[in-house]
Amino acid sequence: MAEGRAVTKFDEATQAIRVDDATYDVCLDDAYSIGGPLNGGYLMATVLRAVVDASPHAHPVSTSAQFLRVPRPGPATVRLARLKSGRTATMTRATLVQDGESFIEALVTTATLDPAAVPDWSDAPSTTMPDPAHCVPLPVPKAESNMNLSAQVEMLFDPPTVGWLAGEPTGRPESRAYFRMAEPQDPDPYVIALAVDALPPVVFSAGARGWAPTVELTWHLRALPAPGWLTVIGGGRLISDGWFDEDVEVWDSAGRLVAQSRQIARVGRG
Amino acid sequence: MAEGRAVTKFDEATQAIRVDDATYDVCLDDAYSIGGPLNGGYLMATVLRAVVDASPHAHPVSTSAQFLRVPRPGPATVRLARLKSGRTATMTRATLVQDGESFIEALVTTATLDPAAVPDWSDAPSTTMPDPAHCVPLPVPKAESNMNLSAQVEMLFDPPTVGWLAGEPTGRPESRAYFRMAEPQDPDPYVIALAVDALPPVVFSAGARGWAPTVELTWHLRALPAPGWLTVIGGGRLISDGWFDEDVEVWDSAGRLVAQSRQIARVGRG
Repeated sequence: MAEGRAVTKFDEATQAIRVDDATYDVCLDDAYSIGGPLNGGYLMATVLRAVVDASPHAHPVSTSAQFLRVPRPGPATVRLARLKSGRTATMTRATLVQDGESFIEALVTTATLDPAAVPDWSDAPSTTMPDPAHCVPLPVPKAESNMNLSAQVEMLFDPPTVGWLAGEPTGRPESRAYFRMAEPQDPDPYVIALAVDALPPVVFSAGARGWAPTVELTWHLRALPAPGWLTVIGGGRLISDGWFDEDVEVWDSAGRLVAQSRQIARVGRG
Repeated sequence: MAEGRAVTKFDEATQAIRVDDATYDVCLDDAYSIGGPLNGGYLMATVLRAVVDASPHAHPVSTSAQFLRVPRPGPATVRLARLKSGRTATMTRATLVQDGESFIEALVTTATLDPAAVPDWSDAPSTTMPDPAHCVPLPVPKAESNMNLSAQVEMLFDPPTVGWLAGEPTGRPESRAYFRMAEPQDPDPYVIALAVDALPPVVFSAGARGWAPTVELTWHLRALPAPGWLTVIGGGRLISDGWFDEDVEVWDSAGRLVAQSRQIARVGRG
């Protein structure tokens, strides 16, 4: 789990303990709550720990998760079914179970990425970020808000994309921030699973408010991240009929695209 | 299936016959082969017929599919497991089974879209297409190529994005075309399932060749399409370590974004 380094709180909070080939015990940590529900990225990271441990391949290259219900903090189980395993990739179905009920259903492709891979072709970031010195953190949430996730991560936002906090939304779905764990830790695929769902919903910047539950989130790990800050760029294409898409790209400190994510979610009624 | 109109060959080829709540019989049609394998979009459309038939909701809003193996034409079964059903949406796991083995594993969210929905906010297409009169079809494939899909659909390509056919790739992953069924039929969600995986792999335009097997494809139906041509815009962000992403947006003749798709696939060795 933590190869050659100290174990972090995040490592512990996402730990998956092998019971047998198809069963892992986990303990969901209230430190990753976002005002009641647990953060979806944290839940994915926990599920992926089990999937990768049981796979002959080292990295979660593709993860599709359906968010069925909102689990409570405490003990839960990850159930695995290996669908196929070949030389290049292993496909696994994973289910997060609590009190006998399914909370997340995921399809995961694991493969082993080459840390020294040089892209054959790469696009540029979809937008440029201001210097971190010109970015801003979110205000510290009130304790009673139960926004515990905010103490676990450090995020510095591109100021206009958090203008909605002061009643000045930009009018389009967007959210952009530098991201790292509050406890020093180099980013790894599990930190990235957290990062792709850590931004405030992009619809807040388009004027919507209230909890925006994720229905489905798919993300692809495209490269192993270099140490340092991640840059998380969120946008969307359409808000219609109560649904919105949130597209997130994650770049590492070496300027490489390390993850792509898209979720489909419901617009809040808040 | 075909509400108030004549049944098309595509309706028949994607027909799913209910055996019981969890089992549908299908017959995979060689007319949708792409040089041996059957087209992934056709297979998704067939699976989705079963999922929607068994759902209290009318439309496949979100579909994530893992492509495990390549099924042969002929009889197969779609097995369904309902994961959750609520007022807004139903989540279903669907598996395409042939000879007792799984070929596609999919997670599908069905909901009922409002045909009269007006977007709260919409982005513009990521690029503009030339007039159809300035677009070009692909050459008719040789019969022995078994590229049968090409006779089922009409596609008119933005010329530079098929420059690779004449040895002049643009150097970046892209493919763009107007799309409709060869047999007259207004687009519906199943036609869109076909459309999101109907373009030649976007990596061909970046210089790659050979079969580029889809590993995972997730697409979201964002609106019900107006009659007429669809516009299918494909691109990608990164080609690295043998993997590439293919992002596709589908616009209808009324200028609305009706679908978003992303697949992760392997670069061919051809």
